[in-house]
Amino acid sequence: MTDTTTDAKLRALDLDLRRRAAAVIPGGMYGHMTVGYLPAAYPQFYARSEGSRVWDVDGNEYVDFMCSFGPMILGYRHPAVEDAAQAQRAQGDTQPGPAPCMVDLAELLVQRVAHADWALFAKNGTDATTVSLMVARAHTGRNKVLAAAGAYHGSAPWANFRRDGVAPEEQANLHYYEFNDPASVERAIEEAGADNVAAIIATPFKHNAGFDQEEVDPAFARRLRERCDQLGAALVMDEVRTGFRLNHGGSWEPLGVNPDLSAWSKAIANGYPLAAVLGTGAYAEAASRIFVTGSFWFQAVPMAAAIATIRALQDEDAVGTMRRIGSRLRDGLEELAQAAEVAICQTGPVQMPNLSFPGDTDYVKARAFSAVMLERGVIVHPRHNWFLSAAHTDADVDWFLEAAEEGLQAVLQSE
Amino acid sequence: MTDTTTDAKLRALDLDLRRRAAAVIPGGMYGHMTVGYLPAAYPQFYARSEGSRVWDVDGNEYVDFMCSFGPMILGYRHPAVEDAAQAQRAQGDTQPGPAPCMVDLAELLVQRVAHADWALFAKNGTDATTVSLMVARAHTGRNKVLAAAGAYHGSAPWANFRRDGVAPEEQANLHYYEFNDPASVERAIEEAGADNVAAIIATPFKHNAGFDQEEVDPAFARRLRERCDQLGAALVMDEVRTGFRLNHGGSWEPLGVNPDLSAWSKAIANGYPLAAVLGTGAYAEAASRIFVTGSFWFQAVPMAAAIATIRALQDEDAVGTMRRIGSRLRDGLEELAQAAEVAICQTGPVQMPNLSFPGDTDYVKARAFSAVMLERGVIVHPRHNWFLSAAHTDADVDWFLEAAEEGLQAVLQSE
Repeated sequence: MTDTTTDAKLRALDLDLRRRAAAVIPGGMYGHMTVGYLPAAYPQFYARSEGSRVWDVDGNEYVDFMCSFGPMILGYRHPAVEDAAQAQRAQGDTQPGPAPCMVDLAELLVQRVAHADWALFAKNGTDATTVSLMVARAHTGRNKVLAAAGAYHGSAPWANFRRDGVAPEEQANLHYYEFNDPASVERAIEEAGADNVAAIIATPFKHNAGFDQEEVDPAFARRLRERCDQLGAALVMDEVRTGFRLNHGGSWEPLGVNPDLSAWSKAIANGYPLAAVLGTGAYAEAASRIFVTGSFWFQAVPMAAAIATIRALQDEDAVGTMRRIGSRLRDGLEELAQAAEVAICQTGPVQMPNLSFPGDTDYVKARAFSAVMLERGVIVHPRHNWFLSAAHTDADVDWFLEAAEEGLQAVLQSE
Repeated sequence: MTDTTTDAKLRALDLDLRRRAAAVIPGGMYGHMTVGYLPAAYPQFYARSEGSRVWDVDGNEYVDFMCSFGPMILGYRHPAVEDAAQAQRAQGDTQPGPAPCMVDLAELLVQRVAHADWALFAKNGTDATTVSLMVARAHTGRNKVLAAAGAYHGSAPWANFRRDGVAPEEQANLHYYEFNDPASVERAIEEAGADNVAAIIATPFKHNAGFDQEEVDPAFARRLRERCDQLGAALVMDEVRTGFRLNHGGSWEPLGVNPDLSAWSKAIANGYPLAAVLGTGAYAEAASRIFVTGSFWFQAVPMAAAIATIRALQDEDAVGTMRRIGSRLRDGLEELAQAAEVAICQTGPVQMPNLSFPGDTDYVKARAFSAVMLERGVIVHPRHNWFLSAAHTDADVDWFLEAAEEGLQAVLQSE
């Protein structure tokens, strides 16, 4: 293991905050942002962020290839987004009712996403996936849901992948299929009972944390659409992680496959807390019949930020930028690995890079690589896909590749 | 019915936005902020807010006694809160990890709330109640939860009060008692099985929407504590609506009753989206064992706002202000009602006023009253408790009472 804390960078303030956090926060930190399972050199706390760069509390600078696990699709403190947020903030944010920008945003999403006839807003990605299933259940009058094994749809009890704190009844209506495996879908339908299926939920491609990514087989996407039509069930697309990264509209639009409902969050407001459920006209009545709400779901500032974000994504051709930068990063890394004679596996869309090392089931190599990257000022993750943003530059990729050369040497030494 | 739209105020922009919203938002609007069930004069959309005042999109000004259904405990755009938020925003908000203010906030809550040894943050009140039950289940290894009939703990499927979109299994572990009725608690325990009870969840007082409020009988509070101790179950206090309104710490602290876990949201960051679970040391291990997270749960700006809010609440003696203003409002309204010979019923803490009219089961009188209040520039609600803030002034109460005199006349005419 190469992941003991080194003195290469100052860590004193971070370590002091960790000591204090250990006394007042469960486990010292929780959820996807805990560094508990990362190489020891990772900072837990961050002081500042701008563009593609972040600074930890001890003043160390990093090029951030995690984008806060996705939200920062245009980079930190994007001027157009911050200006729009500030203009709305000067008027009002949480108010006794929504601001006009809620309607503007709903109209914009309906215009940008092919299957969307309406939009409903919330705060968490989990809110959006949960509400999508509620709409599907209200529309169909059925309860069973088919989900891909190992897919992450949130941390609400129905979607939680741990047993701790989760009553079995909360997952009693879930049946699992294997992504890209039509036969497994048939088995899950049989298990649930064809007449009981309210929805099939899927991510646009397989991005289970800790595993290689897998792009969707277009025939599988079409098959899910076809089976949902036959069953009278909703096809629900979980776009929380992917939304607006692969395409300016829905991720399966280039395949000609449209869902009935889709769940969005993470990057739609460039870091402002917002989630959205989009749906077709056929599901509007059911969506109006369920009761879902939250104290901050009508907050105006994140909606104003979302409008600016979605416009900037198209104006700046963010998908094009992420593709170009991502290809350079992938190709450059491939070249370095071949030169160093390190076997690597890069999977998924280049905008959401995933690196693994064949046979590295306990992540020893991935951790060794990540630890060196971190020490060289590059934030990546050993067990989760990375995220590119439109703020990443060729210079950032150069920085990444320089660090990666050393990172790959650490992988060799970890064997 | 007196609630047809009048021309007393301009409504053109609001009506135009409603028409557009009807095309792209389910039901035209959803959740607790829809005006669908309010008198027709209520604006759906708001343009601006400051202190105790809000302006609708047509420029009409109102004194707001709903405080956005609770969050705005210090009033809109409170300088100390906005300054703290802005200072943090200039550094970073959503980042690859939390900012130092997360630790500061956890320490502050642990210091202010007697039973709190730790804090875990989320976005929605529903997140906080859900996570509380997850912690209780993880700690006890049991699944059953006792909740008061009709209490609102959120719109997640397990807590939802409608059947639409909710699978019965999601509420299979809930058993119901009547608030302030110890015998009903015993019946619910028997129904659940004493060995299966993970938690009893309660609000500090009964504030079911559409009904008169009911303060807790101190003996009932003590009884819940005692029964939880006997059962080895968690007493979970849902402070989402009440938090820091009744007391600077936990709402039952003056009774000498402390819960094991508590759920907070709404007003803890004066309108910024934040929720918190607080717990005793005994539950820390379970809290660290469950996996709960969200893309925006570590957002720094709402935490900085929360620190400023909690400090300002104490510095300004916000509870004292709300009590004084609330008492003036309640006494003044009582006097007016007696003079007008209108029977009214005011219940609950004066900081969270609730007005009803005996026998008004279909809310005809409540709607007539609210419609006139609205026309006279005062926002109240016919079926939900109102909220005072520390920004409400004697002049605001005077404005309220002047309008109420006319509102009570409308009640007489509605009979």
